[in-house]
Amino acid sequence: MTFNKVLDDLKLYEAGKPIELVVREYGIDEKDIIKLASNENPYGCSPRVIEAIQQEAKKANLYPDDSMYELKEGLASQYKVNSSNIIIGVGSDEIISLALHAKANKDSAILMAKTTFAMYEIYGRQTGAQILKTPSDSHNLEEFLEMYKKNPQISVIFLCIPNNPLGECLEIAQVYKFLDQIDKDTLVIIDGAYQEFAAYKDKSKAVDVQEMTQKYENLLYLGTFSKAYGLGGMRCGYGIANEKIIKSLYKLRPPFNITTLSLKAAIVALKDEQFVQKCIKENFEQMQRYEEFARENALEFIPSYTNFITFKYDATKNSSKIAQKLLKKGIIIRDLASYGMNAIRITIGMPEQNSKFFRIYKSM
Amino acid sequence: MTFNKVLDDLKLYEAGKPIELVVREYGIDEKDIIKLASNENPYGCSPRVIEAIQQEAKKANLYPDDSMYELKEGLASQYKVNSSNIIIGVGSDEIISLALHAKANKDSAILMAKTTFAMYEIYGRQTGAQILKTPSDSHNLEEFLEMYKKNPQISVIFLCIPNNPLGECLEIAQVYKFLDQIDKDTLVIIDGAYQEFAAYKDKSKAVDVQEMTQKYENLLYLGTFSKAYGLGGMRCGYGIANEKIIKSLYKLRPPFNITTLSLKAAIVALKDEQFVQKCIKENFEQMQRYEEFARENALEFIPSYTNFITFKYDATKNSSKIAQKLLKKGIIIRDLASYGMNAIRITIGMPEQNSKFFRIYKSM
Repeated sequence: MTFNKVLDDLKLYEAGKPIELVVREYGIDEKDIIKLASNENPYGCSPRVIEAIQQEAKKANLYPDDSMYELKEGLASQYKVNSSNIIIGVGSDEIISLALHAKANKDSAILMAKTTFAMYEIYGRQTGAQILKTPSDSHNLEEFLEMYKKNPQISVIFLCIPNNPLGECLEIAQVYKFLDQIDKDTLVIIDGAYQEFAAYKDKSKAVDVQEMTQKYENLLYLGTFSKAYGLGGMRCGYGIANEKIIKSLYKLRPPFNITTLSLKAAIVALKDEQFVQKCIKENFEQMQRYEEFARENALEFIPSYTNFITFKYDATKNSSKIAQKLLKKGIIIRDLASYGMNAIRITIGMPEQNSKFFRIYKSM
Repeated sequence: MTFNKVLDDLKLYEAGKPIELVVREYGIDEKDIIKLASNENPYGCSPRVIEAIQQEAKKANLYPDDSMYELKEGLASQYKVNSSNIIIGVGSDEIISLALHAKANKDSAILMAKTTFAMYEIYGRQTGAQILKTPSDSHNLEEFLEMYKKNPQISVIFLCIPNNPLGECLEIAQVYKFLDQIDKDTLVIIDGAYQEFAAYKDKSKAVDVQEMTQKYENLLYLGTFSKAYGLGGMRCGYGIANEKIIKSLYKLRPPFNITTLSLKAAIVALKDEQFVQKCIKENFEQMQRYEEFARENALEFIPSYTNFITFKYDATKNSSKIAQKLLKKGIIIRDLASYGMNAIRITIGMPEQNSKFFRIYKSM
């Protein structure tokens, strides 16, 4: 059977290895495995959320309230926007996909940093659009602007603030200057999946979502419950933008896209800000241990505004071999070879997990 | 901002009204509302599934095993196919969308019955393809064949067996004869969302998925956990086909598409066949009460092979008004006006829910 031509160029996303797979493939006991690969919250989620899920389990047979009224009200209040400015997705991932299918096509191009979240390119290619990347690995707005001006076919620009998988973060003042130069018919997607972390560490990196989406009608902000809120497994994210963008995305949104339990979990998670702040504070305390470890062991690292840290290697070392060695010892981290880098990305774990990582890494 | 032209023609899916909305809009107490609108399983899901979800709730922070190894093994064993013949989706809905994006495009057409599951057309339009419908409301394979032969641009055909929202069901022997006449480059999608019900009621309506997908390389079978398995809120369905089709769909599948808890729920649900069979048996016992009620009240109904029944009205009555009256009394059913029919679709509920429906309907 033949398929649409666009499928020929698609490549699959390489996800962080799940614990179940390491148990199956390496025969390591589940309790001996530490997963520091997918930037999940090592502290789990709020106990109030777990309780809410347990209570809601008996409603597993019922479709969710597809208006997502309560969750949108909660987000609207948090960000000081209207419910009509919000769309909920299966992770912010789904909003990326909807936005690209709404705006990109085979005659357009999508601009992004050389090394950024892989799904921008993967979903982008599904639309047949051309993928353009800036020369530098990290976000460099001068490069973005130069390429934007040279390529009038660009219809979508991605800024990942802070950037996954590298951890660096743009200054918001600079982002405003950049946005001023972008045509109102070009969709700019600000991926704030790790914004909670960046905002805590440095106010100058914090996106004011209300201000930004009101000032720029071509801006779509993405947030997620997968990281700071500890709900990676519940697949719930959101997009915030002016109503015209949201209405267009709604046209492509599958009905009942998130589960009844995910909806409940997200609603309750929003109400336990204390849990989130505690996790973020702990994250940066533990991050310092990684920075010290890197310095002590002459490892190059990228200062991070997220819940992970990236170690870069020179030609004498090979990130894939290091990742493989760690895996055999039951530590799952993310090899960045699939991003074309000789580097590994480590999710900041709980104190004892990090201690174990340091011990095993040094022993290799 | 301008968007891709294809969005101009898109219409939104009209879902069954959720209980939360009726509480909000009509001020009716939640306990007084009966929802017979979305073909959910009124008996909930297996108690073993609820327990599994409750135990798994603490893993809400962890992404699912994206290989979906255990669930695919379970389905492979149930259908006697290989894991490589299976893809898991956010409901079978998502598989419909993936298949259409893989195979349909603006130069092709999609063939379906006049009155069938609305998402075929909605997702179909997203690809820019032409939508072709047979003249009869119910599935009529002669009409399908005639239109197929007249329109060589048809690249996808949908057969909903049994059909939602009407409830009628094709004879499988006839489906084989039809499939023999279809070109191997045309994708035929057999939507088996309600197959468990049809197979119980009449063996001649039961799809042998292994046989059919092995015999026809252009066939994609869709199943779901949303109906007989009682997991509508968990958004989990699947596609079964030859490896070439599955590989192509995988190229478009978002990673981590279903939640960690949905994966667990589906795995456990598959193991409690007794619960499913009990629900289906009860469903048809209760269905007989609806048929009797219809006969006693001179209401026209379509004999159904599913968990719902459709009442058709002549010009003296108006389905939207009837639906509205029922809603004000706290009974949510599905008005089929959005399908262009003067009819309502009622999900078969639990005995006491059905008694209440009969009582209120008669009193109106």
